[in-house]
Amino acid sequence: MSHFQIKNRAYEQAVRESFAQQGFMDYLGAILTAVKAGQVIIELPVSPSLSQQNGYVHAGATTAIVDSACGYAAFTLMPPNSEVLTVEFKVNLLSPAQGVKLRAIGQVLKPGRILTVCQGEVFGVNEADEQMLCAVMTATIMCR
Amino acid sequence: MSHFQIKNRAYEQAVRESFAQQGFMDYLGAILTAVKAGQVIIELPVSPSLSQQNGYVHAGATTAIVDSACGYAAFTLMPPNSEVLTVEFKVNLLSPAQGVKLRAIGQVLKPGRILTVCQGEVFGVNEADEQMLCAVMTATIMCR
Amino acid sequence: MSHFQIKNRAYEQAVRESFAQQGFMDYLGAILTAVKAGQVIIELPVSPSLSQQNGYVHAGATTAIVDSACGYAAFTLMPPNSEVLTVEFKVNLLSPAQGVKLRAIGQVLKPGRILTVCQGEVFGVNEADEQMLCAVMTATIMCR
Amino acid sequence: MSHFQIKNRAYEQAVRESFAQQGFMDYLGAILTAVKAGQVIIELPVSPSLSQQNGYVHAGATTAIVDSACGYAAFTLMPPNSEVLTVEFKVNLLSPAQGVKLRAIGQVLKPGRILTVCQGEVFGVNEADEQMLCAVMTATIMCR
Repeated sequence: MSHFQIKNRAYEQAVRESFAQQGFMDYLGAILTAVKAGQVIIELPVSPSLSQQNGYVHAGATTAIVDSACGYAAFTLMPPNSEVLTVEFKVNLLSPAQGVKLRAIGQVLKPGRILTVCQGEVFGVNEADEQMLCAVMTATIMCR
Repeated sequence: MSHFQIKNRAYEQAVRESFAQQGFMDYLGAILTAVKAGQVIIELPVSPSLSQQNGYVHAGATTAIVDSACGYAAFTLMPPNSEVLTVEFKVNLLSPAQGVKLRAIGQVLKPGRILTVCQGEVFGVNEADEQMLCAVMTATIMCR
Repeated sequence: MSHFQIKNRAYEQAVRESFAQQGFMDYLGAILTAVKAGQVIIELPVSPSLSQQNGYVHAGATTAIVDSACGYAAFTLMPPNSEVLTVEFKVNLLSPAQGVKLRAIGQVLKPGRILTVCQGEVFGVNEADEQMLCAVMTATIMCR
Repeated sequence: MSHFQIKNRAYEQAVRESFAQQGFMDYLGAILTAVKAGQVIIELPVSPSLSQQNGYVHAGATTAIVDSACGYAAFTLMPPNSEVLTVEFKVNLLSPAQGVKLRAIGQVLKPGRILTVCQGEVFGVNEADEQMLCAVMTATIMCR
């Protein structure tokens, strides 16, 4: 059970509908794998289309999934008919993004009526489903 | 003329070769349009494949091109046979990313032997080639 | 002349009154040296009380003056009776903060009704009033 | 017991000696309360000298103690005779910094030979030693 106050009982549906409208998530091949109050997980199968110059996943692809995960984590706690908007984020790249897929976990740190602060983590996941932290995000998300 | 010290006369070729290896830039449709000492410009034609839920360009795509622009701006000032690596970046999203294309300009603010700090700007560009600032980045780039 | 829209004709007085209430600026010895629409400058005489372990100015003192400079730069463009609040900032430390004084310049990059994005610079200034960039900030400021 | 590799058995002494040389910590009245491998805690009694315009602790003072806490957390894992240097940090201010004291906890997230990434938290602490999170930091720290 969540310690966050829920203002939209249909938050999961709201997240899934909005995610389905993100053409970029579809183009990347990203999958919305979990939606809880205050936490959203998005996974991304690794492929050569996502690579930077050394064959690892490009920081832009890593950022894309963890930005969506953080934004939707904040969105789960917003009232019905809200619009969610990323104000800013900061990403530290800790180790090469690699594996069979990346797993981005967005988590609400501090909800607010207007601004919500989220923390995100991205893991590289191997065939044995072992995960290694490759990036962290702090994001400010706005409700309109 | 640049006020930066140039350690690799073939910096433009080095940038172009590395850019060509970034599968993600190709997959997005991004184009390397200018390479100068300490400054790199990358453009991205806007398409529905890049969209977030409101039809604007997803922050992940915006970040991808300005991260590459900043990284390669730093790379232009590195010695031959260097490897370039993004340590971290911060992005503020100032207005919706829209237009016929986005233009990301990465610029070296402070070069260093190990770490280089870059600032990036992303503009939405319309049919008349008028541009509007939609995002700014500050990035720390590492030379190895 | 400023290209920003001014909503409070008495913005300079508002900034000066608020600055005078910041006990920390007084304790540090910081001086408000310029207030324009969208730009504020704060200077800080360097003393051993402000040092980190190598004798340079501590990043916390550097941050204090550039945070106030950015916050008040945003405040100059807010309506009368607004409250100004820093949401977040990011600082890159480019070179050691040293000299006879530090000069922090806060500048509005993008004003907004609720959120304003500012960029700040801190310079070390020597006896000849020559300045050297030692830190940059990007800050998100809120109007309440 | 720590899961981090320790390269300097005298890390606590090294941190305490360096902290004692930070004139700014002394001037603020900050106290080094705990030094473990990968984690450092610094506390700061709240006083009017530290205030911003609303009477809360100024973000510069909050940043000062959590920057030192993160830097020294990284320093605990560095080899003897290293020099520690903050490259950059990002701070999100979550709630007003208030109480009888602030408590800053700096923690190593990812150590490295050259760069170490730390996360910091600052809590406002009341008379009953109840703490409330008021700020978070992500910092990149360099070893020289």
